[in-house]
Amino acid sequence: MPTITNTCIRLISRAVGLPDASVWKVCTQPLPALEDSQFLVRVHYISIDPAMRGWMNEGSTYIQGVQLGDVMRAFAAGEVIDSKNPAFPIGTYVTGLLGVQTYACSDGQNVERVPASSPNELPRYLGVLGMPGMTAYWGLLDKGCPRAGETVLVSGAAGTVGSLVGQIAKLHGCTVIGIAGGTKKCDYLRHTLGFDAALDYTQGSLSARIRSAAPQGVNIYFDNVGGDVLDAALENLARGARVVICGAISQYNNTTPDGKPAPPQGPTNYMKIVTARGQMNGIIVFDYFHRTQEFRSHMQRWIAEGKITLHEHILEGIESFPHALTMLFRGENIGKILVRVTSPSVPSA
Amino acid sequence: MPTITNTCIRLISRAVGLPDASVWKVCTQPLPALEDSQFLVRVHYISIDPAMRGWMNEGSTYIQGVQLGDVMRAFAAGEVIDSKNPAFPIGTYVTGLLGVQTYACSDGQNVERVPASSPNELPRYLGVLGMPGMTAYWGLLDKGCPRAGETVLVSGAAGTVGSLVGQIAKLHGCTVIGIAGGTKKCDYLRHTLGFDAALDYTQGSLSARIRSAAPQGVNIYFDNVGGDVLDAALENLARGARVVICGAISQYNNTTPDGKPAPPQGPTNYMKIVTARGQMNGIIVFDYFHRTQEFRSHMQRWIAEGKITLHEHILEGIESFPHALTMLFRGENIGKILVRVTSPSVPSA
Repeated sequence: MPTITNTCIRLISRAVGLPDASVWKVCTQPLPALEDSQFLVRVHYISIDPAMRGWMNEGSTYIQGVQLGDVMRAFAAGEVIDSKNPAFPIGTYVTGLLGVQTYACSDGQNVERVPASSPNELPRYLGVLGMPGMTAYWGLLDKGCPRAGETVLVSGAAGTVGSLVGQIAKLHGCTVIGIAGGTKKCDYLRHTLGFDAALDYTQGSLSARIRSAAPQGVNIYFDNVGGDVLDAALENLARGARVVICGAISQYNNTTPDGKPAPPQGPTNYMKIVTARGQMNGIIVFDYFHRTQEFRSHMQRWIAEGKITLHEHILEGIESFPHALTMLFRGENIGKILVRVTSPSVPSA
Repeated sequence: MPTITNTCIRLISRAVGLPDASVWKVCTQPLPALEDSQFLVRVHYISIDPAMRGWMNEGSTYIQGVQLGDVMRAFAAGEVIDSKNPAFPIGTYVTGLLGVQTYACSDGQNVERVPASSPNELPRYLGVLGMPGMTAYWGLLDKGCPRAGETVLVSGAAGTVGSLVGQIAKLHGCTVIGIAGGTKKCDYLRHTLGFDAALDYTQGSLSARIRSAAPQGVNIYFDNVGGDVLDAALENLARGARVVICGAISQYNNTTPDGKPAPPQGPTNYMKIVTARGQMNGIIVFDYFHRTQEFRSHMQRWIAEGKITLHEHILEGIESFPHALTMLFRGENIGKILVRVTSPSVPSA
């Protein structure tokens, strides 16, 4: 192999609020030679996920934060172009925590082979068949436990996880209400995804409109956003409701008046869980990686039958990563945001 | 029977913050004659419970609020002194929602016969063998699901429910940490009740001291208080923790800066439930009334064996009710607060 230059994006300072360009540094450097059991991946697509905002913070929650100076953590998908690992021969398509970079050297840890037949098929392994798909699938089915006839309310409903939760809930015979920001997203939920109702949280009293859409109350609330939307949902729980906390994207960029990072707004209506005889728990997708095949076989069947779809919003070039991330936090996307890495192909050795 | 004059305390306005004397009116009136299937109870003890603060508000949660002008709702215990109901003959001791009054006319709804042999035994049917005892028992055992060797953290630990939760948890082989306000209460928890540790929330960082007392994390957190104490507990959950919400006494008298009732402070650390793979639910004791005998047989055995105790703090005279309630919200009590009703006995007909 000729020497390859890797372009990567490193986290160089902690963000306060919405991450701006100053926290990133684009670096290029030649890749070192592979060691035994390593392989080299040419990255084709980088996944933009809400969880990234937590990874940018100091300390650890369910996973250690990215160290300052390190390549930003990201799920990505690509193709093995050189290998000293027989389990990952040249030509293998892979996904995993490959980072925000054009080439990733891996020993196979946190990396998985995927049965794609061309790079164009890779985005789905970062979306509907990947981590967000698993989050939606297991969060709804294993934590929410939907039963036919129940009402499922999901926030961030036009986002990747939210749009999949709603579609999977429909497939289980539930009435599905989505919460999203703006007419365009709400139209998409109703007319493209077939949600029973879509509520625009930017318009008037959300709690009253949930009550109107779910007069018998909400049996499952799947929360991707936190904040006031969570409180409005809690006001409308049916008896025995399950509240599944997946994320709190409206709260990740909170700052104090003097410009320091601030914790999320706590749900003042948390006692409604008690009076509804409900429960709240959450979904950490890493706990379900050992059940990937089980998930994927269901999801692939639904995709093949045309019952599940996921809109993809693709930005070109690794340099678009910082913008892609702010788009996500500003809610400017429908469905899955990805960055397509457009490095020139490496000539064969 | 001669005509009997009933003294009752009515709720005449909605409280904002800690209820003051202006929301109550003491009234006296002759009791009407009994109708068929009714019976008359001479009330001996009135139970003072945190839940009363919620009952004083407009609207409904798990139970309708007390209407303005009505006798204040209360659990109480007394003796049947006249009866047209064969199930409740004269001389029967009863407990139930008899209200803050010296005599209660009942048709048996929400009233239960208890096997007391004298009025002196009635307080325990309002405490350790009554509603708070059931709350502690089912909240810990059915919602918290303790296993031997686990660490149980309980707030409001010197109160009725809290002190029982801790003792029941000890009987199930758990390490028990209580949170209470002040040295006197903490000494009581350690030395009288045998808690493994007692943390005074008024002294320094509670979260750090929980971490110190529970280095492996908290498996069950039983919350009676809400607010900052709840957030400190959430920071210290062990993997798979169960958070049982029973009450939020620190939050019931919240007001806005302009003097209106305010909702509880929401737990900013609610996402810790997710990262801990935990869950939060709550206990509504009314759901367990059909299992009273099952509860009581266990509790009576523990009392007989000297393994469960409950301190009683008794105030004299129905007029002391408003003061008793503010004592409770100010945390001036250890254990159960009761009002002893000191009406003169009614001469036999």
